[in-house]
Amino acid sequence: MASPKRLQGLTAATITPMTPDGEINLSVIGQYVDYLVKEQGVKNVFVNGTTGEGLALSTQERKQLAEEWVTKGKNKLDHVIIHVGALNLPEAKELAKHAAVIGASGIAAIAPFFFKPTNKDTLVAFLREVASEAPGIPFYYYHIPSLTGVKIRVEELLDGIKEKIPTFQGVKFSDTDLLDFAQCVKNNKEQFVLLYGVDEHLLSALAMGASGAVGSTYNYLGKKNNLMLEAFAKQDLVLAQQHQFCTGEFLSFVFKLGFGVAQTKAIMSFTSRIPMGPPRLPLLSASVDFIEKAKAKMDSLMV
Amino acid sequence: MASPKRLQGLTAATITPMTPDGEINLSVIGQYVDYLVKEQGVKNVFVNGTTGEGLALSTQERKQLAEEWVTKGKNKLDHVIIHVGALNLPEAKELAKHAAVIGASGIAAIAPFFFKPTNKDTLVAFLREVASEAPGIPFYYYHIPSLTGVKIRVEELLDGIKEKIPTFQGVKFSDTDLLDFAQCVKNNKEQFVLLYGVDEHLLSALAMGASGAVGSTYNYLGKKNNLMLEAFAKQDLVLAQQHQFCTGEFLSFVFKLGFGVAQTKAIMSFTSRIPMGPPRLPLLSASVDFIEKAKAKMDSLMV
Amino acid sequence: MASPKRLQGLTAATITPMTPDGEINLSVIGQYVDYLVKEQGVKNVFVNGTTGEGLALSTQERKQLAEEWVTKGKNKLDHVIIHVGALNLPEAKELAKHAAVIGASGIAAIAPFFFKPTNKDTLVAFLREVASEAPGIPFYYYHIPSLTGVKIRVEELLDGIKEKIPTFQGVKFSDTDLLDFAQCVKNNKEQFVLLYGVDEHLLSALAMGASGAVGSTYNYLGKKNNLMLEAFAKQDLVLAQQHQFCTGEFLSFVFKLGFGVAQTKAIMSFTSRIPMGPPRLPLLSASVDFIEKAKAKMDSLMV
Amino acid sequence: MASPKRLQGLTAATITPMTPDGEINLSVIGQYVDYLVKEQGVKNVFVNGTTGEGLALSTQERKQLAEEWVTKGKNKLDHVIIHVGALNLPEAKELAKHAAVIGASGIAAIAPFFFKPTNKDTLVAFLREVASEAPGIPFYYYHIPSLTGVKIRVEELLDGIKEKIPTFQGVKFSDTDLLDFAQCVKNNKEQFVLLYGVDEHLLSALAMGASGAVGSTYNYLGKKNNLMLEAFAKQDLVLAQQHQFCTGEFLSFVFKLGFGVAQTKAIMSFTSRIPMGPPRLPLLSASVDFIEKAKAKMDSLMV
Repeated sequence: MASPKRLQGLTAATITPMTPDGEINLSVIGQYVDYLVKEQGVKNVFVNGTTGEGLALSTQERKQLAEEWVTKGKNKLDHVIIHVGALNLPEAKELAKHAAVIGASGIAAIAPFFFKPTNKDTLVAFLREVASEAPGIPFYYYHIPSLTGVKIRVEELLDGIKEKIPTFQGVKFSDTDLLDFAQCVKNNKEQFVLLYGVDEHLLSALAMGASGAVGSTYNYLGKKNNLMLEAFAKQDLVLAQQHQFCTGEFLSFVFKLGFGVAQTKAIMSFTSRIPMGPPRLPLLSASVDFIEKAKAKMDSLMV
Repeated sequence: MASPKRLQGLTAATITPMTPDGEINLSVIGQYVDYLVKEQGVKNVFVNGTTGEGLALSTQERKQLAEEWVTKGKNKLDHVIIHVGALNLPEAKELAKHAAVIGASGIAAIAPFFFKPTNKDTLVAFLREVASEAPGIPFYYYHIPSLTGVKIRVEELLDGIKEKIPTFQGVKFSDTDLLDFAQCVKNNKEQFVLLYGVDEHLLSALAMGASGAVGSTYNYLGKKNNLMLEAFAKQDLVLAQQHQFCTGEFLSFVFKLGFGVAQTKAIMSFTSRIPMGPPRLPLLSASVDFIEKAKAKMDSLMV
Repeated sequence: MASPKRLQGLTAATITPMTPDGEINLSVIGQYVDYLVKEQGVKNVFVNGTTGEGLALSTQERKQLAEEWVTKGKNKLDHVIIHVGALNLPEAKELAKHAAVIGASGIAAIAPFFFKPTNKDTLVAFLREVASEAPGIPFYYYHIPSLTGVKIRVEELLDGIKEKIPTFQGVKFSDTDLLDFAQCVKNNKEQFVLLYGVDEHLLSALAMGASGAVGSTYNYLGKKNNLMLEAFAKQDLVLAQQHQFCTGEFLSFVFKLGFGVAQTKAIMSFTSRIPMGPPRLPLLSASVDFIEKAKAKMDSLMV
Repeated sequence: MASPKRLQGLTAATITPMTPDGEINLSVIGQYVDYLVKEQGVKNVFVNGTTGEGLALSTQERKQLAEEWVTKGKNKLDHVIIHVGALNLPEAKELAKHAAVIGASGIAAIAPFFFKPTNKDTLVAFLREVASEAPGIPFYYYHIPSLTGVKIRVEELLDGIKEKIPTFQGVKFSDTDLLDFAQCVKNNKEQFVLLYGVDEHLLSALAMGASGAVGSTYNYLGKKNNLMLEAFAKQDLVLAQQHQFCTGEFLSFVFKLGFGVAQTKAIMSFTSRIPMGPPRLPLLSASVDFIEKAKAKMDSLMV
């Protein structure tokens, strides 16, 4: 599956489909791949991340899902990145090794966040242990300080990382510190892939030099965001803003209603018509009221 | 192992011994049991919790440790409580079932904290799924909002919980909200065991009616704290304060040096002379400087 | 007004009475003094603090109130402490000087919290400038990190402070870090007055050696808390707990309804029958619903 | 002073010059005005804000400074906006009235942040009281949730605000929530001035449609930022990025050294050669080491 092409453009943070009683539902992954490629124009996926409830799945479930995405994505997707981060190192390593064996395009890992690394060296040491289990495929760091509380600046992390982690390839940067992001771009644009992960701010990050984006909204607003990327590439900022404001309006609306992974599953179900099922405890399904309002808003914007 | 005696007094949150290269070291658990009982007067343990690096161990390692503690504690310890909490429900359930099978005295679970329950009902639903895998042994809720960010008040949680979780037995309350704690005592003292988990404030919690305590310092300051419990039981508050101030002085000193699970391992190694080994990444071993200073302070206080 | 007696027991953090249109209402202070002394058994007051909306008053208003309390408290109150803290040093100094001139028993100051002192020395330097304007009366530090964000440990602050601030007399400690508080007691009990400021945890702090308490609830629950102090002094911890649980039950109840200075004003109005008026913007008056529920709860508890 | 021109481009958040012993130094304001206009190309100022230590000055000092800026700026500056926000409403109103009397171009106010408004209506009620004291000049809201803790979304605040505050003219938006900012632009670009206040992210905000910027760095990096604005206006994003990365590199460097208002004063002193003096307690002067390193970095970047 390793792609000759460098990762760029949009990457969908995949949702994990579940059966009504909360078991993972592998049967719709093939359909999901086709939907992303054909309906949204998205050919890269990030599996078992936050949106994918990766940390709410058992190690065994994570492996099954990873395998299904790699298998069904063959010859259709450009990149299948498997998130292998975990609170405990043995299982993160096990998942990294497994991802390499099944032929994933790359792996990514979040910082451990129960016990937290307190400086760059400790974080690098942890990530290196993970990355070294998959020495033949790219490694990406998944930076999301609002969820992990690990605030080590990425600019600092990237400095000299290639010597410690030879497979290091880039960052999913899910934070609003655009100075840190800009410094990463300034210092590493040639060498690393810098993917922005706060979907509602994507245009801002493009202005700062983002290589691409990873996020949950590209599951159902991929087409719209691809139009924004095109407009931006043509330096048509007015048009790019129009597209950004459109998705911003939708997100601002659902944020006010209360938004999270459960709501993303519901939105994806009505948009794609693929049943994503309920989230897993401690999350609860989106309410009927949320679904109706979100659907009406989406319809009003996408005309 | 199920004890006829209700859990009370001190419970040591056990440290997980490791080999120099970071594997769990089961070979010293027997010695550890004897040390707690004979040297510290502590006959209850809480295994695989925060101090035990439970969330930094694989599911397999957690099972091995649980088994070793139950086996070696037989006829020596009164209570062996196994912490089975996890971010993902399938593994938490698996651990709960395992604890029951091996004959643990009880199980405990932390709130999931990547995705967080946003209200009492969701938290209870999650805990119920875990507890129901071990229907024959007591279940304890491990409340530690500073680490989990789950701030649902325990007073509210306990209201009606017995109907939802028939094995519910009590709380390890690791927070400084002593109003919430006092309300738990006021409403449930007969029914539930209310164990306080902020070691350096134990005397405060005793004044509010705590049934006992669970913490890391009882590994090496159990004796001192037992003296405090005795003084308190005799209403000799002046003497109880003396003991509290002594351990407070030690903790205040090491907190200023930088304190966590890694430092606890080091202190326990020099106090018990049982080698606890290094912590696991992302934690790093305590520095030699820390160890020297902590040892000197301990020696000066325990004369 | 300088009292020969060292400050101890309960101190009421006074509420600032206002007219219906939001001007300070000096006309009821005399009545307020009598109420505290006769109905609540409280003979110390802390004026223009958090409860008193001190930071929502102009410098001129703060002076007027201070004067009125000193005047009306003469021969009735033991201690009238004026809070003179402010974000800007010139006005804090002006208020300190004024308090000394009018004959206050002491002054207190909060840490500045827009720009924050980042270490002990800077905080001491700021406080010294304030204290030195009132060299003849005691100075108290008002520690309330939850509101100021200034987390410098009080144990550290007190170390050597008498050399820098000769009038330093004690601390209003409004935080739940009872280890820090215990260390203050252990190191300074002879020299300084250590007043606890989290009303709902008072019994805990007494167990740790508190000299007394300053808080808003002693305006309307002073009598009850005096009974607790008496029981504690007699080492009757069971009775002390009963009193603590009673006020805890009330506070826990109103906290759930939403509680703050506005609600304190309303509770005081119905308890004392002295009209406290509305709070000042950005605070809004307590709702009728809150008042009814709080009153019913109070009535049910105080029978 | 009221300008026919709508506020746009760069606005310098002015530094308050002080004498070595910490008194405000009015004597250099005239020189400061000339420096901004001639050396930095900045013709708008925001006086007594965060950078200006407005909240560390007495009301009297704030008035003196406001007057001096208006007087010295006459016929030289386009806009002199006076920040009149305060924790207490009477003094904020007094300052607003004063600003109008002396002929300021506009006033601005921060949300009160000791007691905090808990919803939009309360915040608007507070701001309205302030604005109505200066009915003839524009009012700007100063949004800086990281310092105030007041997180009411600006999108929501602006909805219908003109009916409540007829002089409402715009926002100094000092936050990284660029979705909220984008929604403000989308809904209000014609009506209001939307000034971005996180200097190191300015290019991102321009991409989202910012009208201009207010910040401390425009005191000494105004020229550089004007070049960025020009490049952006010509849709030359590559050049705009170069300028942004240059100032970003400087700021990233000084942030690592420890950066705040005290450091801004020092940088401005060596850049403009106008002595800005020390900051006021609880801030301390920048260290000699900081000054040397910052100066060397500036020199290396501005060649």
